[in-house]
Parts: sequence; structure tokens; C-alpha cells
Amino acid sequence: MSIPKGSSVLDALGSYRRLALLSPGEMTRLCGEIRELITDVTLKNGGHLGGSLGAVELCAALLRTFNPERDKIIFDVGHQAYAYKILTDRLDRFCTLRRKGGISGFPRRSESQFDVFDTGHSSTSISAALGFAKARDLKGLGHEVVAVIGDGALLNGLAFEALNNVFECDTKITIVLNDNKMSISPRVGGLAEHLAKLSVSAPYRRLKRFIKDQCRAMQDGNRMENRLARVKTKLKSLLLPANIFLDMGVSYWGPFDGHNAGELAEIFELSKQYPKPLLIHAVTKKGKGCAEAESLPSLFHGVGSGTVLNGEPRTPPDAGPADWSGAVSGVLMEMAAGDERIVALTAAMEEGTKLSAFKREYPSRYFDVGIAEGHMLTFAAGLAAGGMRPVVCVYSTFLQRAMDQVVHDICMQGFPVLLAVDRAGLNGEDGETHQGLLDMAWGRSIPGLVIAAPRDTADLAFMMRSWQEKDVPVMIRYPKGRAPESLSRRTGAPRPWGRAEVLRRGSGVCIVGIGATVKMALEAADLCKKRGSGKPTVVDLRFVSPIDWGTMDDIMGSHSLVIVAEDGYREGGASEAIAARASAGRSCSVRGIGVAPGYVPHAARAEQLADSGITAEDIAAAAEDFYGGTGSGKAG
Amino acid sequence: MSIPKGSSVLDALGSYRRLALLSPGEMTRLCGEIRELITDVTLKNGGHLGGSLGAVELCAALLRTFNPERDKIIFDVGHQAYAYKILTDRLDRFCTLRRKGGISGFPRRSESQFDVFDTGHSSTSISAALGFAKARDLKGLGHEVVAVIGDGALLNGLAFEALNNVFECDTKITIVLNDNKMSISPRVGGLAEHLAKLSVSAPYRRLKRFIKDQCRAMQDGNRMENRLARVKTKLKSLLLPANIFLDMGVSYWGPFDGHNAGELAEIFELSKQYPKPLLIHAVTKKGKGCAEAESLPSLFHGVGSGTVLNGEPRTPPDAGPADWSGAVSGVLMEMAAGDERIVALTAAMEEGTKLSAFKREYPSRYFDVGIAEGHMLTFAAGLAAGGMRPVVCVYSTFLQRAMDQVVHDICMQGFPVLLAVDRAGLNGEDGETHQGLLDMAWGRSIPGLVIAAPRDTADLAFMMRSWQEKDVPVMIRYPKGRAPESLSRRTGAPRPWGRAEVLRRGSGVCIVGIGATVKMALEAADLCKKRGSGKPTVVDLRFVSPIDWGTMDDIMGSHSLVIVAEDGYREGGASEAIAARASAGRSCSVRGIGVAPGYVPHAARAEQLADSGITAEDIAAAAEDFYGGTGSGKAG
Repeated sequence: MSIPKGSSVLDALGSYRRLALLSPGEMTRLCGEIRELITDVTLKNGGHLGGSLGAVELCAALLRTFNPERDKIIFDVGHQAYAYKILTDRLDRFCTLRRKGGISGFPRRSESQFDVFDTGHSSTSISAALGFAKARDLKGLGHEVVAVIGDGALLNGLAFEALNNVFECDTKITIVLNDNKMSISPRVGGLAEHLAKLSVSAPYRRLKRFIKDQCRAMQDGNRMENRLARVKTKLKSLLLPANIFLDMGVSYWGPFDGHNAGELAEIFELSKQYPKPLLIHAVTKKGKGCAEAESLPSLFHGVGSGTVLNGEPRTPPDAGPADWSGAVSGVLMEMAAGDERIVALTAAMEEGTKLSAFKREYPSRYFDVGIAEGHMLTFAAGLAAGGMRPVVCVYSTFLQRAMDQVVHDICMQGFPVLLAVDRAGLNGEDGETHQGLLDMAWGRSIPGLVIAAPRDTADLAFMMRSWQEKDVPVMIRYPKGRAPESLSRRTGAPRPWGRAEVLRRGSGVCIVGIGATVKMALEAADLCKKRGSGKPTVVDLRFVSPIDWGTMDDIMGSHSLVIVAEDGYREGGASEAIAARASAGRSCSVRGIGVAPGYVPHAARAEQLADSGITAEDIAAAAEDFYGGTGSGKAG
Repeated sequence: MSIPKGSSVLDALGSYRRLALLSPGEMTRLCGEIRELITDVTLKNGGHLGGSLGAVELCAALLRTFNPERDKIIFDVGHQAYAYKILTDRLDRFCTLRRKGGISGFPRRSESQFDVFDTGHSSTSISAALGFAKARDLKGLGHEVVAVIGDGALLNGLAFEALNNVFECDTKITIVLNDNKMSISPRVGGLAEHLAKLSVSAPYRRLKRFIKDQCRAMQDGNRMENRLARVKTKLKSLLLPANIFLDMGVSYWGPFDGHNAGELAEIFELSKQYPKPLLIHAVTKKGKGCAEAESLPSLFHGVGSGTVLNGEPRTPPDAGPADWSGAVSGVLMEMAAGDERIVALTAAMEEGTKLSAFKREYPSRYFDVGIAEGHMLTFAAGLAAGGMRPVVCVYSTFLQRAMDQVVHDICMQGFPVLLAVDRAGLNGEDGETHQGLLDMAWGRSIPGLVIAAPRDTADLAFMMRSWQEKDVPVMIRYPKGRAPESLSRRTGAPRPWGRAEVLRRGSGVCIVGIGATVKMALEAADLCKKRGSGKPTVVDLRFVSPIDWGTMDDIMGSHSLVIVAEDGYREGGASEAIAARASAGRSCSVRGIGVAPGYVPHAARAEQLADSGITAEDIAAAAEDFYGGTGSGKAG
């Protein structure tokens, strides 16, 4: 295009449709500019830096080759799609990344016609691609379907099930393996070793010529089958070591340099002529082009807003030592010191769940299974069956991937596994796919599972230590962000296991808080008092399942209205359990405050709470509705 | 042991501890006797015939080699463990198989010390084995851990995640692959092809010698590492084609004849000397020794009670053309005839979900993905995104494996996928692991998911056809067993989409039925009327989510007590949703009738319903409690 040096290729480009006009030098400049934009915005707004930087050339090459208006390009997880967003139709809006009302950090169909499948959880892209491809075949269309998947996501069972199904589906899809040797933490497992061997196999000089021949042979009428057989054998023998993709009936091309946009585009072009399912292996570097992100890829996988590159990566503002994850890992370390049965498990979330110290101190008792939540829980069940006390640190949203394992392998057998459920509730900037709003609803129907929600780190420690002495499965849920040390003015030990705690005695209205909403409940009571509208009782429910009916029956017997505030969906939540109890003949009304049905998009957690009507002010208003109607402060 | 011809080896044996004393001829006789016992009892009581018959030699060889009091033997799914049960401590009780109070059709820790891990759902054994093995290592113990897994179960993502983790765990487990080339239906997929190639590879004559050398080398002090390297290369080159297990860092021995108990025992013995994780590939025949089961392995996978072998396999009594699965597949066929967008999906459950006719009629629109529920749902989402209308036929209990895919891939994006949820509710003889009691509880908290429960096939057809015209995800749940054609005396079209239906108008009490409990609700009202105790209103809720509040608010405003009867857990169920609505200021009481927290063991479905207090009589009694207390028939 002859874009003068010094002026912006990205601005001059206008549309991805003109990518093919760029010279190799201009492509390089373009990728540099995109990298700069990604780095600037992501450091400012927070987001997934490393993966996005590693996939710039890949996105550019895809858009130079494929037609995103017709072809279906599906990004797995979506961490790595920032450059794709910039190059399709979101250059102007990119500065709003992850902000309320701005563009999402993940692919979203609602955001652009170029995002064809929403992602956020790992390893869905190959399944979705097969679906798109079979729909295409049935409709007699001819577009391409491309799944872009990271090596970490490829090792998940869902991706494997899809890979296994490729053969049976007998349709053309192209899987682009974006192999940066990392998931979020370094990838692990036997297949990871296998990928490593593939990715270092000597660059095969004749590979491109060979692929060309192969594509030609495939289009070559009646001799195709014979030649195909020969080609396959040849390809197999050429590519050492043994190749798992070929074993499963998926052709393999690679490895290629994932930072050579021109070569990638050529290979993608060739792939369009190849009629069979195909995996293209591109080797990339996580954090490419940003020295800090390249050297500390796990830490720079995701960054908080306002991160400054100064050699000392700034962790998200709410991920300091006083956050919930840190508090859990602190107690866990103390427990492990005195009890050799304690083991810790994570699914590629060492940093997020703050398990690095545990890993250093107790390497033989630490298990990072990779992005494999299902296996993690059944593995934990096996460890418990063998006499260990497994503590599983997992985000609420990802635990959804393993609900059946919680039921079938842990709770049905009553194994003493502690599910430390992090990021429960509204989760902020990651948006819809990462909300932890379902755990109470599905968890409390599982027989034998105790669900606890601590209001502060004092109660967290009590709950974890109590589990250690018991022989039952327990889920402890806690939100993203800072953890209060103690919300109770009372000194001494917390209330016993299984019991709710009355924090303030009032009349008429009782506000029930659960975990993160206990603080709000106390603040709401303060507001009522300050405004002279009434003096609500405040209860910390502490145990969502089973609920302490002794305390709650007393409360329902002595109050006219119980307001239950929870950081989760109202439907199926704790407020319904309490309401059901109340409705069996009690005169007390129950009102639930929680998230209404719907998927909550990205914004700050505080914004999401406010938009969902879960604030001290909302709770106070609900109480004052009652007090206003019946006269201030009256007993119920 | 010199057991006289004509007398029973099984009786003479006494204990598995004496298996090693049997001559080869006696082993053969023993296996024949066990087969006869399994066939007799299973045909009589119903159960899993084919898999169990195929694994008789395997179980005998395991118990001849390993010590089940110390070593941990984990059967995947557990279909194939009948011989193991007979040979350990359940010979006398085997005739009670699957009967109430009798022994379970699956491994159960509560039943015997020799069952070390409960199973029922597929593909958990390798994860559990790794857990047992790491616990052993941490405790400094030395026992063996063996996972016995079928080839169908091996292709599930959970098993793959575990296989991938074997390398990282760096501990000794032995995986016995019981390869009968089937899951429940014939196994499918790329890896299935790979297994097929492995299993027909020429019997390697020197294999056993080679394995012996290998074991010796492993125990051989300082030269071990060098020799290991050589041994590995040798093994790899000997075993063609390329081997996926070796690719993942798991040693592979095989294939062996899975019906040669002596050879298997020798190999197992050698495996004890081998210090690394190992997969032993045994090729077996599903239904071995029973001509009918060998020739129709899918049909004889599971049989109903009272099956007679006469060449025409008798299907379970409640799986006739008038059962719910058949009704669904009938409507599906009609829908597919007029709408090319309709596609059907199953996860290795062609027979169970009655999809064979659809498969024959619309082969290109039928997808059996193997035991891979997670992939199935994301694949369905992709098909829907591509313009198809996927109907997913799946058992409630197995859908638990894919809850996150329902949330993240289908409902969050609002794709028009129909989840046809079979075997919802209490499920009879398969027991705890197969109950479908959770779907309403977790399903109704998922935003955007419509949950419907038809009372009869007329409403089923209406609901399925209505979905076809809508653009939303829908779950239709229905139980095991016979489906009433029409429960309504009213003729004409069913009530509109989304609405509940008042079937009888009465006063004081309203009984709300959901799906299977509608019939009970009507019968309960009859009982009340007959006994002169009162005249309850009867409502068919029809839609569990969202609930038709227009109708229900009217009902709650005009009745004093609403009884909600549901074939699922009370906790989190529909009765709580209705109670929560009632408790927000209404004077109506709500009482839920459903399954109390706990895992319901095997028995007939009718027995389980009675034990759970979900019968017309229980409902009538609850209504009469009210009428008795307030005076018969009074308006509320």
C-alpha cells in the first residue's frame, strides 16, 4: 500500500479487507502498532495481555486469508482475540475494553457480526466449529470454519471429545493451534510433553512444497484416493515423533512460526484447498513484544486496571495479600503445616487462587492438573478415598464444568473434600461468562454438601479448620476482592459450625446477609437507624446448606419481614429456601434481594452490584418500605 | 484343586484367595459357571448383561493376581463388575441384584470392603486411581492401584484429562482397557479407529518375553535409565501403528486376548513388577458366551427384568412404543419430516433414547458423539449457531455432566436447542448414580432456559412443536416408563405456551402437579372426593421455568394451601419457587412434596416414589390434613 514511514498503518488500512495489499514490511509495522494499542489499553483498563500479544500475527494472517463475513472464525476462550477485534470493526471502541458499556474482553455476538460464537470458558471452539461445519454441509454452503485454540485449552476433555468426533463428522474444519506452551499457568501433562516434542521437531524445509502437493493431490479427481493414501503415509513418516492428531484422523501441518504473518497467511491459503479436517500448529510466544510479559507470562496473563510496566508487575488492586484468595491460601498453609493429609489442587489457576506459596512449600502435595476441572474433582475424590484431605481451589464459574463430579464422585460418597470456591458472585470486568452466580442454586440441592459463606477472614479460618476436623464435603464460597478481617464487634470464637449468627437485635425486619452481603446488611441497618426509620435485626446466615433452621425459625417467628440479600441468582437461591420454610404456615414475609434472571455483562463489580440492586441502600429501602407501612420500629 | 467334574468350581472355591490354586481347566469351568449365574440372575432381575459377560475372565484374572483387600481395583461405570462381585463376597447375595435391599448393579462402598470407589457415570476410574495412587505415595504405602475401563468410557473427556495427568503425577497406576469395541452403542470417533488398529495389530509373539525383559530392566539399579531409554524406543518401534498412549507418556502392553484368564493373570503379575504407569489392552467380546447377547450387543447391554432368551430379545417392560422415549422420538420424526433444520444428537444412547428410526431415516442429520455429553451440547450450540434446530436426547443424570455447556454455550447465547431430558426423576433399579433428581433445581436458575414438563404425550407433542416455532433454548423433562396419551378430559388444543393449566376447580387446597405427578394429583383429588374430605383444585404447572405467575397468583389468592408435588429434590425445586412467591406477602401456605435430601438407592421406581412420599395417597393426606383442620371443603 506504500504507507509512508512514520504514519500509522493501522489508520491507513481502514478495513481488514485491505490486509492482502500490505507489503511484508507493512504487515510487520501493523502488528507492532496493534501490539502497542493492546498494551496501552490493557494496562490501563485491565485485561488479558499475554495471550493477546502472542496472537497478533495470527489474527492478522487469519483476516488476510479468510473472509470473516462468510467464514466462521471461532476463538477459544477469547483471551487472544483482541487483535481480531481491532482489525474487524472495533478499532475505535477498543479503548472502552472491559468498561461498562464498552467492548467485552471476549468474543460476543451481540457486539459484532464478526464474533460468531461467544466464549469465555475454555475448550469449546472445536465442538462449536464442528457444529458450524455440519450446519454448512446440511445447508449446502461452502464457507470455511476455523477454530483458534490455545495449547492449554486443547488439553481439556471437552476439546478432546471434539477432536475425537472430527473423524466421525467427516467434514472440513481447520483447527489453528496457538501453541505458547502455556495455559494460564505453564501447561502440564503427558500431551503437553507430546506437543513440546512436536513444536521443536526440526523445521521441515520441504514442508510447504509437500503441503502444496498434498492439496493438489486432493483436488485431483479419480486418483485422489490412491494418492491420499500415499500422501498420508508420507506425511506420517515425515513428521516425528508420533503424532496424536494423525492417530485421531486429523491431518497435521506444522510446526510454523506463529509470529511470521506472511508464512501463516500462505499456509492458511493452502488450507482452504485442502478438503479434510486439519490442524495447523503455530508456535507463539505469550506476551510477545512486551519484555515484562514475555519474562513473566503467568503474571501478565491477566493484569488489573492501571498496571504500570516498571519491571515489577502490578497485580490487580484487589488481589493484594488481604484479598479472599490470599486469605484462603494463608489458612491452607497453616493447616498443611500441622496435617500431612492436606493437599491442594488447582486447574491452571495457581496465580488466581494464590497457591504459589503452597506449591513452593509442599510441592509433593500440590497438584495443578491443567484446565481440567472434571478430572480435578474426581482426582480429589480418589485422594480423599485414599485418606487425604483435598482442598480444591476453583473459581465458581469454572466449577460449573464439574458439577456432576461434585455430585457423583464427592458428595454421593461423602468424601471430605473442601471446595474453596473463589470469585463467587458478581465478578466484574470479565463479564457474562465469568459470573459466579449459580453455585448456591445448584449446590444447595446436592445432598450431603455443606455450603458455607464467611463474612470475614476470621470466620473463613474457622470454617476451613472446622472442615478439617469433619468427615464431610464442604463448599466455602467467597467473592473476588478484598476480605474484611472481622466484621463482628463481638470478640471470641465465631458461632459454632452449622449455625447462623445474630449480629444485631432489632425488631420488625430482619436482614439476612450471606458472605459478601453481610457487610451490606450491617450498613443497611446503620442507614435505617441513622434515618430513624427502624431498627432491623441483622443475621449472618453463614451456612447456605443446610440452613440453621433453629435460628431462622426464631427469627421468622419474631419478625414480620425477612430480607435475604445474596450475591447470586435469586431463582433457586437461599432466599427461596427461607421463603419455602416461611410459607409452610408462618406469618412472616420473605423478600429476596439478589441477581434477577439474566446474564450480567462486564463492568466493575461495584457497578454490577448496584445495577442488580444489591447494595446497602437497596436493602435499607426494602426495610424502610416495611417500616414506613407499619410504623417505625414496631415489632412484627 | 482337583474339583471333580460335574461339581461346581464356584462352590468349591470358597474364596478368591484360592483362585491361584485352580488349574487352567478349572479356571475355564469357573468362568463358565459365573457366566451362567450372571445370565440367569440378570435376565430375571434385569441389569447389564453384555458388559458383565465380557469381563468374566478379566475379573477372575484380576482377583487371581491382585489382593483386593490391599490393592485398589476401580471399575469404571461398573457395568462389568458382576463377576468381581460374585468372586469377592457377594456370591450368596447375587440373586438380589438390583432389587430393593439387595446388591447394587454398580460398585458400592457401602456394600463391600472390596468396592473401593462408587461408580455409575462413565470415565471416572483413571482420575480416581490417580488419587488413590498419590495418596498411597504420600503415605508411603506400596499397594497397587488398578483402573478397569471400557473403550467407550476411555473416549470421554474426563478419562482423557486423567490420562493426560498420568505423566505429571509420575506414579504407578495400571489401567486395564477392557476393549469390546462398544460403549453402549458401538463406539465412535477418531480414537476408536485408533484403538481398532491397535487391537488388530498382529499378535506379537515375543511380547511377553519383551515385557519380562522390560520389567527386569526397570528393577536393575544404575543401568536402569539407559536401558529404559532403549526399551522405550524398542517398544515404540515394535508396536505399530503409532500409539496414543505412548504419546501421552503411558506405557502400553497389548493387545491381549481378554478371554484367556491364564495369560491375563500372567501379564497382571508382570505388571506388578513394572514401576511406571501402564495401560494393558485386553480385547474382549461384549456378551461373550451368550449367543443372543453376542449377536445383538447394543440390545443386550441392559435388559429388563423377566427377559427370556428366545432369539427375540425382550426389551424392558416399560420401554415399549408407548413409553416417553418412544413418544419423543415419534414426534421428532414428524418434526424432521417437515423441517430440514431438525437434527438429533445422542451420547452413545441410541437405544435408550429410541433414536434408531431417526438414524435410519435421517442418517446425515443424526449424530452419536459417543459418551461425550459436554461436546454434544457445545456441538449442538454450534449447529444452532449455523442455523439448525438441534434436539439433544439425553438422560437427566448424564446431562449433569454438561451443565456448564447448557449455561455457557446454549443459554447465554440463547440458541434454539431442545434438551429432551429423559429419565428425569426417580429412575428405579440403577440406583443412586442414575437418579434424575437435580435437573429442575439447577435448570431453573439458568437465565433464558425454558423448562417444561408434559403430563402426557399430547402435551409433549405440543411442547416440542412449539419449541420448533420459537427461537429459545428449551428443556423438556420426562420420566422413565410409560407415557399417558392424554390425562385431560378436555378436548381441543392444550393450553398455550408458558401457561399452567387448571384441570379441576375446587376450593381450599390446590394440588399442583408437574409432569409425572399430574396423574398423582388427579388421583389424590379423586381420593379426597371419594372420602368426602374436600374438593381440591388441580393444576398442571407445565412450565417449571419461568412459572406462569398469572395463573399461580390467582390460585394463591383463592386458596389457603397449595401443595406442589414434584419428581425431583424438594431443595431448590419448583415448590420453593412457588413458596417464595407466596411468602412475599400472600396469605397462602405452600407445601412441597418431593424427594428429601439424600441419595435414593436401587429399587423399582414405584417403590422409590412410595419411599419418598410421592404418591397420590401422600398428596391426598396432605390435603386432608388441611381440610380436617379447617372443615371439609371450605374456601380458603
